[in-house]
Amino acid sequence: MEQLRKHIEEISSISDEEFEYIKSFFAVKKVRKHQYLIHQGDEVKYEFLVKSGIFKVFYLDSQGKEYIVQFAQENWWMSDYYAFFKQQSAEMYIECLEEGEVICLTLESREKLAAELHKMEHFFRIKLSNGYIALQQRIKLLLSSNPQQRYEEFAKSYPSLLQKVPKKLIAEYLGVSRETLSRLYQH
Amino acid sequence: MEQLRKHIEEISSISDEEFEYIKSFFAVKKVRKHQYLIHQGDEVKYEFLVKSGIFKVFYLDSQGKEYIVQFAQENWWMSDYYAFFKQQSAEMYIECLEEGEVICLTLESREKLAAELHKMEHFFRIKLSNGYIALQQRIKLLLSSNPQQRYEEFAKSYPSLLQKVPKKLIAEYLGVSRETLSRLYQH
Repeated sequence: MEQLRKHIEEISSISDEEFEYIKSFFAVKKVRKHQYLIHQGDEVKYEFLVKSGIFKVFYLDSQGKEYIVQFAQENWWMSDYYAFFKQQSAEMYIECLEEGEVICLTLESREKLAAELHKMEHFFRIKLSNGYIALQQRIKLLLSSNPQQRYEEFAKSYPSLLQKVPKKLIAEYLGVSRETLSRLYQH
Repeated sequence: MEQLRKHIEEISSISDEEFEYIKSFFAVKKVRKHQYLIHQGDEVKYEFLVKSGIFKVFYLDSQGKEYIVQFAQENWWMSDYYAFFKQQSAEMYIECLEEGEVICLTLESREKLAAELHKMEHFFRIKLSNGYIALQQRIKLLLSSNPQQRYEEFAKSYPSLLQKVPKKLIAEYLGVSRETLSRLYQH
């Protein structure tokens, strides 16, 4: 759990005693390659902080076509947030692409921690601000019609994902064809 | 400022005394049709809570093509959040489509309010959660290749915008052609 503490302390400093209390709300889970953490239609009990490994958050349309909403790696948070916050059944899937561990937090625990510790409310707010910015940037990228620009922004923002995630999935995330992506890779 | 109080109290209840203090951080500004609140390249001093009127948040690519990131109406928050939170110059524009008033908050005031009042930190966190969900849904919509589905979700989520925003702009927001949108309107 030292990683969790470091992660929180990037935003809010906490005492040993506080961390003892905070960590009691979290549970660690090992995840194998191709294992699903969330499956469409299921209850979404947790949000996850990635300890290690790589994950893909996606959904399928009625024709079974896959759309990638986000990737996640070390120290990123992920869930089907609509379903998690609104306590509805999942619209999305989370699949493990590279085995690792996640730290799980229920909505009830999250709200309790935020209500009891102003520091944790602050931590969650700042994480959400950063997440909000990332999604606004992603929308900007998706609206832009230029595949090269999308690819370059992705490569600049997430160099480690570029190395680790299959090109096919990156093309899908960027909404460009695999052929277009291969051409861009050669530059 | 009664509207601001109601808006905050949907999430956090506050005393008269607290509200007197809170409201001292906000300023009201009238906005005319076609007036810009944020202009690409400017410093982004404020985020805005819409009191009345309709606004368009957008950016222009290097060819001058316009992309609409969001619309905003009564009780919605808006800014170029990347620029606002990171204190960078604006990448986006905010233009008034229908005259109204906005309530302005600087980043410094926002952080001070959140640090001093746990209730306000909670308020901002919950607003961000909702905003995060809305953006995640918008990404889902943008990735989906079906114009009819995009249109229907938009119509269901924002019936009042459908009445008030020119069809041309809705088509642009949805990333569909105006002809396609006109066809969908007839159903």
